[in-house]
Amino acid sequence: MKIQIKILGIAALTFILSIAAFSQTVGDNGKTRPYENEAKEIMKRGLSECQAYQMLDVLTSTVGARLSGSPQAAQAVEWSKSTMEHLDFDNVHTEKVMVPHWVRGTTEICEIVNSSASTPIPLKICTLGGSVGTPKEGITAEVVEVESLAQVKMLGDDAKGKIIFFNRPFDKTKFNTFEMYGGSVDQRWGGAMAAARGGGVAALVRSMTSKLDDVPHTGAMGYNDTIPKVPTAALSTIAANRLSEMLKKEGKVTVHLVLDSETLPDAESANVMGELKGEEHPEEVVVIGGHLDSWDKGKGAHDDGAGCVQSIEALRILKELGLKPKRTIRAVTFMNEENGGRGGKAYAEKDRPGEKQIAAIESDAGGFTPRGFGVTADSIVFDKISKWAYLFEGMDAAGIKQGGGGSDIGPLGAKKVPLLGLRVDGQRYFDYHHSDSDTIDKVNERELELGAIAMAIMSYVMAEEGL
Amino acid sequence: MKIQIKILGIAALTFILSIAAFSQTVGDNGKTRPYENEAKEIMKRGLSECQAYQMLDVLTSTVGARLSGSPQAAQAVEWSKSTMEHLDFDNVHTEKVMVPHWVRGTTEICEIVNSSASTPIPLKICTLGGSVGTPKEGITAEVVEVESLAQVKMLGDDAKGKIIFFNRPFDKTKFNTFEMYGGSVDQRWGGAMAAARGGGVAALVRSMTSKLDDVPHTGAMGYNDTIPKVPTAALSTIAANRLSEMLKKEGKVTVHLVLDSETLPDAESANVMGELKGEEHPEEVVVIGGHLDSWDKGKGAHDDGAGCVQSIEALRILKELGLKPKRTIRAVTFMNEENGGRGGKAYAEKDRPGEKQIAAIESDAGGFTPRGFGVTADSIVFDKISKWAYLFEGMDAAGIKQGGGGSDIGPLGAKKVPLLGLRVDGQRYFDYHHSDSDTIDKVNERELELGAIAMAIMSYVMAEEGL
Repeated sequence: MKIQIKILGIAALTFILSIAAFSQTVGDNGKTRPYENEAKEIMKRGLSECQAYQMLDVLTSTVGARLSGSPQAAQAVEWSKSTMEHLDFDNVHTEKVMVPHWVRGTTEICEIVNSSASTPIPLKICTLGGSVGTPKEGITAEVVEVESLAQVKMLGDDAKGKIIFFNRPFDKTKFNTFEMYGGSVDQRWGGAMAAARGGGVAALVRSMTSKLDDVPHTGAMGYNDTIPKVPTAALSTIAANRLSEMLKKEGKVTVHLVLDSETLPDAESANVMGELKGEEHPEEVVVIGGHLDSWDKGKGAHDDGAGCVQSIEALRILKELGLKPKRTIRAVTFMNEENGGRGGKAYAEKDRPGEKQIAAIESDAGGFTPRGFGVTADSIVFDKISKWAYLFEGMDAAGIKQGGGGSDIGPLGAKKVPLLGLRVDGQRYFDYHHSDSDTIDKVNERELELGAIAMAIMSYVMAEEGL
Repeated sequence: MKIQIKILGIAALTFILSIAAFSQTVGDNGKTRPYENEAKEIMKRGLSECQAYQMLDVLTSTVGARLSGSPQAAQAVEWSKSTMEHLDFDNVHTEKVMVPHWVRGTTEICEIVNSSASTPIPLKICTLGGSVGTPKEGITAEVVEVESLAQVKMLGDDAKGKIIFFNRPFDKTKFNTFEMYGGSVDQRWGGAMAAARGGGVAALVRSMTSKLDDVPHTGAMGYNDTIPKVPTAALSTIAANRLSEMLKKEGKVTVHLVLDSETLPDAESANVMGELKGEEHPEEVVVIGGHLDSWDKGKGAHDDGAGCVQSIEALRILKELGLKPKRTIRAVTFMNEENGGRGGKAYAEKDRPGEKQIAAIESDAGGFTPRGFGVTADSIVFDKISKWAYLFEGMDAAGIKQGGGGSDIGPLGAKKVPLLGLRVDGQRYFDYHHSDSDTIDKVNERELELGAIAMAIMSYVMAEEGL
C-alpha cells in the first residue's frame, strides 16, 4: 500500500478515509466521556516509550527461561523485585511460595530403530514437564498410535508393553486457537496415565500446535498415585507425522527412548509485587498480573514474560502520569503457573488483614494486540465493566465478553473476586507456546505495549470507581 | 498459559470460560441468521486447508519481488493467470496495462566523509522509487537536517547546494499505524521536490517506519516538471539517527551519495482476473482484489502478495464449497499499484458492455488478522453492509466502519461503486513495508487465511444480495 499525495487524488482520498475508519470510534458525539482523557494520555505515554518491550528484553536476555525451582526462576524473582524498586513502586515485596522442582536432565533421545532402517531415524522430542525419566539404558518398544485417551482402553492387550503414541492433531477449522488447544491437550496431561493404565511403557504425544515444524512443545503432564508412572515426551509435529507415516508404511515400528528427567524436592520461591497505593481506600486492591515462571524451552517471552512486563508497565505508566487512583493497584508477578499454580494459590490464601481484593486482571495469552477483556463476574459487575468498553474503542479492543480470567488469579475467583483476562489476537500463540520458539523476536513492541495500556486503563478505572 | 484438566479445577474452569469469551458471539438467540451456515462452512474450509499461504509461498519463492516493468512482474502475471486457470476459475484472462519502468540500478552508496573521520562512515540507504540517479562520480555535499517540507523554504540560502535530510519520525503515540505513515510520508513523496525548490542537490529521507533497525524502506517519490529532478534515497532509521547525531556533534557533516537508478520507457504488463460466474445476474460483478506488483525490496509478501492470494483463495473456497452466487465474483490481481496505479485506472476505464460493477473489495494492508471492513459508500449501502457484521463476529472481525477501500479500486469509487477495504491488525505492517523485511516468514498462515475467509464471506453475501 502506498500514498501518492496530491498526485493520485483518489488513492490519497481512499487512504484518508481508511484512517477515518480507525479513528472515528471515540467520542462521536463530540463530548468527552468519563476517563477518556486519562485513557488517551495512558495510550500516548505507553506508545511513545514502549518500556514493556525493553523490560522483556532484559528479562529474556539476562534471565532467559525460568522454570519453577531453577536458579533462573530465582533470578527472575530478583529481576522483578529490583525492577519494581527501581520504578519506585509502593510496598515492593516478595511473598514466599514453595514450588515443585522438576528438571529436564540432559538426555532426550527418541529414534526409530526398525530393522528395516540401516541407521536409527532420530525424532525431535522434548520431555513433558513432570515426567519421570526412563531407565538409564532407555526403553525400546513397539509403537502403537491412537487418537484419544479412550482408544488405549480399546486396544486391550495390544497396548501392553508398547509405547503409546497420541497423535490427535489440533482441529485447525476452529477460529479460537485456545479452543484448538483445549481440544487436544488432554493427550498431553493424561497420555502417560492412559498409557500406564493400558499396560504401556511410555507415552509420546504430538506437540500442542497447529504449526508444522520440527520444534517440540513441552507442557505439564499428570500422574495418578494408583497407576505406575511411565515417561512421556512431546514429538514435534513433523516428527509425529513421520512416525505416523512409518507406522502406516511398515506396520510395525520400534522406538528407542531415553529421558533422564527427575523431580527434586520442592524449592522455595516467591511471588513478587509492588503497588500504586490508593489515595482514599488503600485497603481495596485491584490486582494486575502475569506469571514469572516459564517452561525451560525458549525464553518464556510470550508465556508469560509478556504478562509480567505488561503488569509492571501498566503501573509505571499510571505512576509516570501522576495519576493517583482512589484504590490500590498492585502488580503481581506470580510464581509457578506452569507446573503447580502454587503462586496463585498462595496469593489468594494469604491472610491480608483489613484488605479486600476488588478485582484481578491477568495477561497470560501472549503479548499480542489486545482485543478486549474476558470477564468472570456476576451480572451487575459485568454490566458495569462493559460500560467502560468505549475507553478501548480507540485501540480496537472494546470486546468485553463474558468468561475469562487466568490461572494465577483463578483462586481469587473462587473467593468471588471478579476476574478479567486480557483477550488478545491469539492466532500466533501456539506457534511459540512452551517451545524453543518462544523468544523475543516473536514479540512486537507495539502489540505488547498495547496490552499494557489496556491493563493500565482498566485497572485505573476500576481503582477509581470500585466494583 | 496452560491447562491442567481435572486437577486444577479452577484453572480449567477459567480456561473454558475464556473459550466462551470467544465463541458466544454468534447466534446467541439460538436461531441461525441468513448466511451463517455458509460463513461457517467458508471458515472451516479455509482454515482446514490454508491454501492462501501455500500460494504466497509459491509466488514469493519462485517469482519474488516484482516491480512494474520488471521480468519478475511479467512472471507474476503468468503465475496469477496459471494459478487461476489451474483452479478452473471462469473467464480467466489478462487485460493489458502500460506501466512505468523504473530500475534501481546496482549502486547505492551513502557515506559520511567528514574530514574528522579517518574512513568514510557508510549509511544504509535505498533509492526511492522513481528517483533519478546521481552523476556517475556521485554527489558530495554538506547535509542539512529538517523536519518538514516547509522548513526547507525557511532555510533560504542555507539549503543551496546541500543534501536535504528529512528526518521527521513516525508519531509513535498514535494507535493507527496508517495514521503514523500518513503523517510522515509527505517527506518521501515531496522531499526531492522541496529540496530542489530550495536549491538542494539531493534529498535523504528517514525510512517510513517506527521500527528502529538498519533496514531502509523504499516507496514512491514525486517530481514536478517545473523544478529540477534531484536524486533521493531513504535512510534506515538507525542510519538516520546516526546522521542526526553526527550533525549535532560535529555541526557540519558532508555526505557522498552515489545512485544509478533510471527510468526506462513504459513497459507492457497486465491486470489478471478470473471469476465465479453469477447464476442469475452474471453481468453484475463484485470485484475482490489486491495488487500483483511490489517494490523491488524483500519479496512483496505482505505488500501485496497477501491481497492477491487472499482474493484468489476467497474465490477458490467458494468454488470448492459449490456455492453458486447469483452475481459474478471476480478476483483481480492489479498491476502497478506501487508506482503509478495504472492497473486500477485501466480496470475502471475499460469499456465492459452490459456489465455493472456493484462493489469492490481490496486487501492491501498486509496479511494480518482481519478486524472488519472499511466502507466507502452512501448511507443506504453502508447500512446494508453493516447489517452483515454478525457474520464476522465468530472471527472477531465485525468492525464495519465508514471510510476505506484501496488504491486499485479507488478509480471505481470515483464512478460511485461502493468500496470496501479489508481492515486488519496493522501494528506490524510498517516494520516490513517496502523493505527487505517483507518476506513470507513475517506472514502467519492462519492470519493470512482469515483475511481470505472474510473476503469470501463478504463477496458471497454481496453477490447473493446485490447492493
